Amino acid sequence: MRARYIIGLEGSVDPTDRGLAYGDGLFETMSLRGGKVQRLALHLDRLRLGCKRLELPLPDQSELERQIGQAAAHIDHGHLKLILTRGTGPRGYAPPASPDPTVILLAESSTVIPATELTVAVLSQCLSENEKLAGIKHLNRLEQVLGRLELASLDADEGLMLSTSGVVISGINRNLFAVFGENLCTPSLNRAGVAGVMRRAVLEQCVELGLKVEVRDLLASELLAADELFMTNALVGIQTVSRLDEKVFASSVMASRLRPRLAELDLGSVDDA
Amino acid sequence: MRARYIIGLEGSVDPTDRGLAYGDGLFETMSLRGGKVQRLALHLDRLRLGCKRLELPLPDQSELERQIGQAAAHIDHGHLKLILTRGTGPRGYAPPASPDPTVILLAESSTVIPATELTVAVLSQCLSENEKLAGIKHLNRLEQVLGRLELASLDADEGLMLSTSGVVISGINRNLFAVFGENLCTPSLNRAGVAGVMRRAVLEQCVELGLKVEVRDLLASELLAADELFMTNALVGIQTVSRLDEKVFASSVMASRLRPRLAELDLGSVDDA
Repeated sequence: MRARYIIGLEGSVDPTDRGLAYGDGLFETMSLRGGKVQRLALHLDRLRLGCKRLELPLPDQSELERQIGQAAAHIDHGHLKLILTRGTGPRGYAPPASPDPTVILLAESSTVIPATELTVAVLSQCLSENEKLAGIKHLNRLEQVLGRLELASLDADEGLMLSTSGVVISGINRNLFAVFGENLCTPSLNRAGVAGVMRRAVLEQCVELGLKVEVRDLLASELLAADELFMTNALVGIQTVSRLDEKVFASSVMASRLRPRLAELDLGSVDDA
Repeated sequence: MRARYIIGLEGSVDPTDRGLAYGDGLFETMSLRGGKVQRLALHLDRLRLGCKRLELPLPDQSELERQIGQAAAHIDHGHLKLILTRGTGPRGYAPPASPDPTVILLAESSTVIPATELTVAVLSQCLSENEKLAGIKHLNRLEQVLGRLELASLDADEGLMLSTSGVVISGINRNLFAVFGENLCTPSLNRAGVAGVMRRAVLEQCVELGLKVEVRDLLASELLAADELFMTNALVGIQTVSRLDEKVFASSVMASRLRPRLAELDLGSVDDA
């Protein structure tokens, strides 16, 4: 097993790559600050879980980290997208017995400062349920693309997606937390959704702060009874939900309390990387 | 809108292509005989439906058919794989306002003569349900890849996949028909599965022959009561199921009756192409 690295926009991908043919692979989008990847350990953790679920070989980790470090080094403020596929192969769903994975690294500078709040609309486009694919960040993302197409016709910054069985899962590319008094709640992602790196960082902070946080199935109607909602994403951090469809939320107390702690954590993980 | 054509194995795909990033596209695998695509009209029909569902621009049809004809021309016996993606774009699920689609054409010779029967095992890997994605041949195929991985450990040629709600959908890459006396039945594909070109050809032949055929939800237990089962695929035609898990099926009467009629149809569609 020997990974093939494709670095930057000038690289080219083989037309028989299984990432293209079947979405047979994973990705990570990581925040870069001062030439370092933020929370690299958490991103690599999720990548490792995805490899296990898809029976996909993880490339040699020290080489992977070296390549990531090199791609990130010249970016002061931006992001790095990593795509890992099962590599090229003959036609047909059957994976090659010993695949040589493809790793694509695309780094980009960005000076956008994300808003601290956003408006959200419940989408009719659902997320389908498959325990084997839930939680990991695989390349089969048509439901998110369809969600984004639907959002374009709505007056909102983000869409809330339910599973086909009707429970709340997440935004199109953000996880969701609901605050009830001093307690937090975030949807279980056992059947659908992506277990975000920033979601994990928030869950860890809640434990540190002694806040009670529940991970469970959550109905959209329950969200309307929350004191506060916020969403999380590795690139934009924590954003308060100011409106969900018609319902206005005035509080951003919990988001404001957690946000600076996650910034601190950021600095920590630069050293971990 | 201007499609970018990538022809043959020497072509290269942009690392920011949305087909790779999100599986944001469609594909068709078409049988080639004497330099002509078999049932091209049916393949293009399904491609058109997929484009509509994904709000993806269909490339200029006469140019598309010209390129397909050219890629197919030098192959006497083989197949042509077509991949259509939403093209390149900036990072993020939001599709570009005016995407320039990518069309990849990969033709291959093959002298394999498919078996006329196969053994089938019911898989534990399920197909998730999403009405918007059901029936079309999009690029999000991890469930089929996982099905194929599971099949590798089983003593069978093909796997039978159920939906997450427990109804029979299809093989990993074949559609299924059950025969009860003179009547046929094939699973409804409104919530999962791919509406195969050969499945459509068989349905049309049943009508021609005055056979009653039902398209409906079907349970695995019902299959055990069938007189005969057969599976269909555009490249291999009709194959009788000789065994489903422990249950042996002795009849191949209906498959043998339909098979020559589909070969005839084949010749017809060469002229249509």
